[in-house]
Amino acid sequence: MSYEYERVAAPRSGLRLHLNENTAGCSPRVLAALQTMTREDAAFYPDYTDAIEACAGWLGVAHDRVLLTNGLDEGILAASVAAMRGSEGERRYEAVVVVPAFDMYAACVDAAGGRVVEVPLGPDFSFDGDAVMAAVTSRTRLVFLTNPNNPTGQAIRRDAILAIADHASHAIVFLDEAYADFAGDTLIGDAALDRLPNIIVGRTFAKAWGLAGLRVGALIGSTETMAPLRRVVPPYSINAYAARALPAALDDRDYYDWYLDQVRTSKGLLYDALRKLSIPFWQSGGNFVLARFGSDAARVLEGAAARQVFLRDRSRDPGCEGCVRIGAGVIDHTEACIAAIREVLCGAP
Amino acid sequence: MSYEYERVAAPRSGLRLHLNENTAGCSPRVLAALQTMTREDAAFYPDYTDAIEACAGWLGVAHDRVLLTNGLDEGILAASVAAMRGSEGERRYEAVVVVPAFDMYAACVDAAGGRVVEVPLGPDFSFDGDAVMAAVTSRTRLVFLTNPNNPTGQAIRRDAILAIADHASHAIVFLDEAYADFAGDTLIGDAALDRLPNIIVGRTFAKAWGLAGLRVGALIGSTETMAPLRRVVPPYSINAYAARALPAALDDRDYYDWYLDQVRTSKGLLYDALRKLSIPFWQSGGNFVLARFGSDAARVLEGAAARQVFLRDRSRDPGCEGCVRIGAGVIDHTEACIAAIREVLCGAP
Repeated sequence: MSYEYERVAAPRSGLRLHLNENTAGCSPRVLAALQTMTREDAAFYPDYTDAIEACAGWLGVAHDRVLLTNGLDEGILAASVAAMRGSEGERRYEAVVVVPAFDMYAACVDAAGGRVVEVPLGPDFSFDGDAVMAAVTSRTRLVFLTNPNNPTGQAIRRDAILAIADHASHAIVFLDEAYADFAGDTLIGDAALDRLPNIIVGRTFAKAWGLAGLRVGALIGSTETMAPLRRVVPPYSINAYAARALPAALDDRDYYDWYLDQVRTSKGLLYDALRKLSIPFWQSGGNFVLARFGSDAARVLEGAAARQVFLRDRSRDPGCEGCVRIGAGVIDHTEACIAAIREVLCGAP
Repeated sequence: MSYEYERVAAPRSGLRLHLNENTAGCSPRVLAALQTMTREDAAFYPDYTDAIEACAGWLGVAHDRVLLTNGLDEGILAASVAAMRGSEGERRYEAVVVVPAFDMYAACVDAAGGRVVEVPLGPDFSFDGDAVMAAVTSRTRLVFLTNPNNPTGQAIRRDAILAIADHASHAIVFLDEAYADFAGDTLIGDAALDRLPNIIVGRTFAKAWGLAGLRVGALIGSTETMAPLRRVVPPYSINAYAARALPAALDDRDYYDWYLDQVRTSKGLLYDALRKLSIPFWQSGGNFVLARFGSDAARVLEGAAARQVFLRDRSRDPGCEGCVRIGAGVIDHTEACIAAIREVLCGAP
C-alpha cells in the first residue's frame, strides 16, 4: 500500500473553505512588512534570528527548543525521515497514525521508508489511548497525535498524551497542534515535558495567523530529541519573505484575536444551521466543522462548488462515510456557506 | 562520522562574496511582481501552475519532467531520502560524492541514513570518472556530480557523465547544475537522457537569477526516476512569493544576461589581480573563483572581513589547503574585493 497526499483543486475565486486557511488573509501588518523587502532581501540567503526570537517569545520557550520549518509539513517530513532511518533487522521501523488524520503523516512515513500502523479512533471519534499504546512495538519510532484532531475537531486529553509518551519512550511522540490556537489548549510549557523529552510539539502559522502561502511552521522540543530532525531540515528552508512575515504577524495580536473570535462565532452559526437541517456534526476545536451529510454528501459538495463555495470531501477517511469538512472562519464566509448548503438541500430560498 | 552543513555567518552589511549569491539583488521586475501580492496570496496555499510553466518553458522541457523545489537543497534532500530508504540486508545504501563538493550532499545522505562514499577529484581538481565508477557498488543508489564543480569551478566532460550514468544504471545520477548558467553548458535537452533516464538534473534560481532568499530550485528528469522524489517533496513546499517571483524573473532575460556579463568580466579582473599577486587560482565555470592563498589564507579572510568583504574559507575541503572561494559577480563588488585583498597582502595603497 502506498500513501500519497492528494492535492485538491484550489480555485482562486470563490470561497475556499476546504483547506482550513484563514480566508480573511494575513494581517495587514504582514503585507506592510513584506512591502519593505528589497532586491537584496530576495537575493540573499535568509537570516532567521528575528523569526526564531519572535516565535520563541510567542510560545514562551527558549530559542534552542524551536526549529522553524517550511510549513509544518516539513516538520512532519523531518520527523519521519529522522525516525524511520534504519530498521530492526529486516523489518522496517513503524509509525503509529491515529486515523482519520492529516494525510501528510502517512505520506511522509511512507516516503521515508517506514511502515504506517493505523489505529482507528473509538466510537464517535473518541480518542482511544489504549488502542494507540497496544499498537506500539519495539519497532515503533514515531507516534502521530493531533490535538485537536483534523478532520474531526475532537480533543485528546492531556493525560492520554502523557501516558502514550511514557509508554512509547523509545519513540518520538509528534503532537501536532496545528489547530491548538482555536482550542486554546497546548502542551507547550507543560512541566510534564521535562520528564517526557520524547514529545515534540508541532505548530503552524498557516491557520490562525493566516500565513499558509508563506509556509511557516515550528517544532518545539528538547535539544536531544530535536537534534536528528534538525539535521534533516536544510539550513535555509524558510523563505526570506516568511522570515520577515512571522515577526510582523506575531506583532498583531489584535488580528489573531479577531480571527479567533470570528471562528468561534462561525462555528456556532454552523452548529445551529446543521441542527436545523438535521445534519449530524461534531463540535470542533479547530477552524472547521465535520458534518455527516450521508448520501447527500456528493450533492452538497458539488452544489456548493457550483455556488463557488468549496468544501472538503472527507467521505473516504476511515469512519467518515458521508462526511464533509467545512471551514469555519470569517463570519461573512460562513453565512454564505450556510446559504449555499441550505439551497442545495432545501432548494432556492 | 557525521556530516552537517556548516552555517556560515552572513552579515547584512558589507559585501557578501562568500555565498555565491547575486549581490546585485533580484531583477527589479521580481520586486515589482511581489509588490502586487495581496493578503490572500500570503494566506492561501500556493498554486504552481504559472511557475512550473515558466520554468519548463525556460529550460525547454515538458511540464511533467519538472519538479520545483524549495531551493535546490530540498531537491538534494528528496533524492537522498528517496534513494537511501531501505538497505541491502544489514548494509546501508550508499551515495557517491566527488569531493570537494557542496556540503549538502553528504549532510542529506547522512540525515537520510545512507553511507557517504567520498571520491576525491584528480590532480589539479580534474574530474576522475574512472575513480567514480570504481566506487559504485551494488549498494550505490545515488551519485552526486556537480557541473561546474563548487568550489573548484571545474567542468565535467559530457562523456564522463554519460559513462557514469551508464555504469551506475541501478542508481540515480544527480547532476547538480547550480552554476550551469555561468558555464553555458547543460545536459538538459540532451538526447542522451532518453537512454539514460537515471540522470536527474538539478538547477537553482538562487545564483544567476538572484532568488536565493526566495528559495526556488528545480529537478528535471524522467517521470519514472522522479516519482519517488516527488513523494518526498511536500505538496506546498514552494512559498507563494517564490511561485510569483519565478515567472517574473524568467521574464527579465536582459537582467540575467547583464549579470552573466558582469560575472564574466569579474572573473577576468580576478584572474588578472591574482596573477599579479602570484596567487594560484583555477579558472572557473561558476560565479566564483577558488584561489590558493596558502599560509596567507586566514589573514586574507580576516583582513577582507575587517574591510567588510566576506570571502569563504574552503581550506578544510579535501585538496583545498589554503584555499579561499571568492564570489565573482557585480564588477564594482569585485573591484572592491580586489582592493581589499591587495591591501591585506601588500599593505595600504
